[in-house]
Amino acid sequence: MSYNLLKGKKGIIFGALDENSIAWKTAVKAHDEGAEIVLTNAPIAMRMGSIKTLAEQIGAEIVPADATKVEDLENLVDKATEILGGKIDFVLHSIGMSVNVRKGKHYTDQNYEWTAKGWDVSAVSFHKTMQALYQKDAMSEWGSIVALSYMAAQRVFPDYNDMADNKAYLESIARSFGYFFGKEKKVRVNTISQSPTPTTAGQGVKGFDGFIAYADKMSPLGNATAQDCADYTITLFSDLTKKVTLQNLYHDGGFSNVGVSQEVMEAFVEKESEK
Amino acid sequence: MSYNLLKGKKGIIFGALDENSIAWKTAVKAHDEGAEIVLTNAPIAMRMGSIKTLAEQIGAEIVPADATKVEDLENLVDKATEILGGKIDFVLHSIGMSVNVRKGKHYTDQNYEWTAKGWDVSAVSFHKTMQALYQKDAMSEWGSIVALSYMAAQRVFPDYNDMADNKAYLESIARSFGYFFGKEKKVRVNTISQSPTPTTAGQGVKGFDGFIAYADKMSPLGNATAQDCADYTITLFSDLTKKVTLQNLYHDGGFSNVGVSQEVMEAFVEKESEK
Amino acid sequence: MSYNLLKGKKGIIFGALDENSIAWKTAVKAHDEGAEIVLTNAPIAMRMGSIKTLAEQIGAEIVPADATKVEDLENLVDKATEILGGKIDFVLHSIGMSVNVRKGKHYTDQNYEWTAKGWDVSAVSFHKTMQALYQKDAMSEWGSIVALSYMAAQRVFPDYNDMADNKAYLESIARSFGYFFGKEKKVRVNTISQSPTPTTAGQGVKGFDGFIAYADKMSPLGNATAQDCADYTITLFSDLTKKVTLQNLYHDGGFSNVGVSQEVMEAFVEKESEK
Amino acid sequence: MSYNLLKGKKGIIFGALDENSIAWKTAVKAHDEGAEIVLTNAPIAMRMGSIKTLAEQIGAEIVPADATKVEDLENLVDKATEILGGKIDFVLHSIGMSVNVRKGKHYTDQNYEWTAKGWDVSAVSFHKTMQALYQKDAMSEWGSIVALSYMAAQRVFPDYNDMADNKAYLESIARSFGYFFGKEKKVRVNTISQSPTPTTAGQGVKGFDGFIAYADKMSPLGNATAQDCADYTITLFSDLTKKVTLQNLYHDGGFSNVGVSQEVMEAFVEKESEK
Repeated sequence: MSYNLLKGKKGIIFGALDENSIAWKTAVKAHDEGAEIVLTNAPIAMRMGSIKTLAEQIGAEIVPADATKVEDLENLVDKATEILGGKIDFVLHSIGMSVNVRKGKHYTDQNYEWTAKGWDVSAVSFHKTMQALYQKDAMSEWGSIVALSYMAAQRVFPDYNDMADNKAYLESIARSFGYFFGKEKKVRVNTISQSPTPTTAGQGVKGFDGFIAYADKMSPLGNATAQDCADYTITLFSDLTKKVTLQNLYHDGGFSNVGVSQEVMEAFVEKESEK
Repeated sequence: MSYNLLKGKKGIIFGALDENSIAWKTAVKAHDEGAEIVLTNAPIAMRMGSIKTLAEQIGAEIVPADATKVEDLENLVDKATEILGGKIDFVLHSIGMSVNVRKGKHYTDQNYEWTAKGWDVSAVSFHKTMQALYQKDAMSEWGSIVALSYMAAQRVFPDYNDMADNKAYLESIARSFGYFFGKEKKVRVNTISQSPTPTTAGQGVKGFDGFIAYADKMSPLGNATAQDCADYTITLFSDLTKKVTLQNLYHDGGFSNVGVSQEVMEAFVEKESEK
Repeated sequence: MSYNLLKGKKGIIFGALDENSIAWKTAVKAHDEGAEIVLTNAPIAMRMGSIKTLAEQIGAEIVPADATKVEDLENLVDKATEILGGKIDFVLHSIGMSVNVRKGKHYTDQNYEWTAKGWDVSAVSFHKTMQALYQKDAMSEWGSIVALSYMAAQRVFPDYNDMADNKAYLESIARSFGYFFGKEKKVRVNTISQSPTPTTAGQGVKGFDGFIAYADKMSPLGNATAQDCADYTITLFSDLTKKVTLQNLYHDGGFSNVGVSQEVMEAFVEKESEK
Repeated sequence: MSYNLLKGKKGIIFGALDENSIAWKTAVKAHDEGAEIVLTNAPIAMRMGSIKTLAEQIGAEIVPADATKVEDLENLVDKATEILGGKIDFVLHSIGMSVNVRKGKHYTDQNYEWTAKGWDVSAVSFHKTMQALYQKDAMSEWGSIVALSYMAAQRVFPDYNDMADNKAYLESIARSFGYFFGKEKKVRVNTISQSPTPTTAGQGVKGFDGFIAYADKMSPLGNATAQDCADYTITLFSDLTKKVTLQNLYHDGGFSNVGVSQEVMEAFVEKESEK
């Protein structure tokens, strides 16, 4: 079913690795809602992923770009506006990676070169993307830019490692750049703080399945899925949310505002009583 | 233009006083998007307002209810489900009133009977509404309940008086009741923290015009209007935001996350330099 | 050991029910640190408690006051300034009670008369206390007013019932009144959001022992005890924290900023795996 | 006057550039309260500053360290424990610098090498410091680590540039590392979000005087000074605040929870009316 919420809109979507990814589902959904899309991924991610399948499915072109490289992003913006035939209405940034996590380095034993690499990929890439869009005046008035984040930016999840700090930086960029993008270009910038989601990318985090089950039991409505996130993201790209900006929006079935759920409390108490 | 975002959905809307009010515009928008609506207001507000005009315009029935009276609310829920022919998909609570504000009592010189009255009307009415809906099992699965709030719940706006405390209580109710409504009935509950809006109700607050101009200059995208709020509320009633719950959602052109804007800073500095 | 942090200071302490209570321990600690104190409690609480023992121990006088009654609070302020021989330097508000909790009424099945009673006792009493102090100009410059709160004001703890909403209102009062008390009288007003504490009052909440164990395992430093809270409160009464105001200060071993701890995660995962 | 609050405690203080700096005043205050201190600064900052004068005044030794260099920090920890004759009880991190700010690069036109440099100096240095302390097991149980931050981490102050994002990252490090430092070593970690302060470092920010006047008028108790901050920091190093951890503590005369003050509102309205 389609509402034509994004009819005639043009967008760039980063990070559609495979069909489990939020970016993938958002691209499909945006297409269904009438948008034309340019897909982009890092050359290295493209080799691993199946983005071409997606591109064919939704009639999108792919413009490879390493989101840590300013020149790649500038090229992406140029190509995308050319391909789409005009300014960009929406952008989804869904990029995150920690070398410390991948290599199993504990948060208290960081390799700082890896820390810097993860920060650049996961957070600064969002600034670089917006700076390219801003300087080329490539966003339409009332356009919408969204990046995906996670609540580790506010609260500690011990296995999330330096991605927590990267997400905090990412969310700060959304506010800082969103101010100027709003004042000067009437463009909104927000982050979505999404439930833990069983994407391929998420699988790098230790004990992720148990954590997803925990989050599900903590959340009054259960975890938000990747598809739920795609649906929600569409509303943020639509003309119905023009005055929402500089926000970090929790999309998590209520997790963020629950201190403890009955189920988690009961599991804990039963476990304690067995000791 | 309509997206049919609420096609086939049934809703109750409180507080459509006149055509400046957010509730009025939301009712019109919801109707345009395919919803059937029951309107409700306090008997006293109905005499002052023009709700019948709205009802005719959108083909809605009116069920008067004093939102401080449990029996009125129970009657409303019964009548609304009868009129609409089924369970309720969405509810908008847009009610607020401080006797201390109306009578010009300063926050440091409250009349506590008035404080209690304002609290009952502005905040407890939301609990009473949800309790009636909950106990009668009158909400559809994945239904959506929204109440309008204001940022005075988090930060001091000196003229906002005891409405600040009422809004803090209201937002807490959204979380507290939203937990049970989510777990037991799969219903989401949120508040929208809206820009100061030149509604008829808002006009009771001292220096309101100046304040609206100030908020507008502080907000990167300017103030969100009543119409903007209606648009946004529709997204929260739609099926695209099913996993958003227990949230207080700032709809304010970015005001909430701005420390100071260049315009406000410049006005302040110039004024100081004149001294 | 004493630092003489409160040497020569005069204070009023509400809510010292018995020796488990935070207010009791704060009174003892404040006395040790050089303060002179007036104790107050509701007449009904005084009959149940052992406040006279405390009064003798620290050489304090008791002025009974029902904190919901303006005239009692005005009398308290008059008597306290008379007894202490001058303006008040610090006040501790440690009062909370929900009739719905006591009588076992679920949050979704409130008795609204009880809701109103609990709101008046737990939250409005703080406003009434400050209004009496403010109107009688009874606070010293750079005086400090503290009320005890709990994180249920921000996040749902299902058994906390309407006390969550009362605490949200209480914290809002601290901000709203703190603004005027700061501007006009140079007095600071803050709330402490304390770990769940095994006081006599806390024992009314269902499953409280299990919850305390849970909070302890979630908190990197474990729960803050009543004695810890007394220590912390003293710093807020001292001259070293003069510019801290309008804040809700988490005193909870870190609980508030933890999404999940390893211990709680492990207990949950093990329990799930047994199913 | 001294309370002997830090009697016998040993601490390391970073960033005492000159007598206007918060770190300088904290060092003096900590010394007055009975602590022994090792001072540290980057070699380049030492040449510009007058830290030797401070060292003589309070009988402290200086160990130069570039806080971006792991080996310098490890040497600092070794030397400090040797000089002080035991484990460290408290640490103050007061380091911040943005090359983009210094060179006048706008936030929407960043030089990313400068961004990386500022991030490393202002934020990662805090992680590196804690990692050195943690791995060498150099902190006492119930020790206290504090870093200075600013509210730009939460809200936009347009001239604050990439320091906003750096502070967001810094505050996230405090939570992330604070979790492990708490669980494993019983050490607390917090940040203080301080009023804009007319230190020598702060003077790099454009329009800083006007901004300080603005913040002063917005804050019910006026801005917190560097001396106020030193006083407050001492309480966080003391044994009275053992259970405060993972927090970002606003020390700002109430600014953070004010939406608008009467004075700022009036200045704005008058200025508008002149147009």
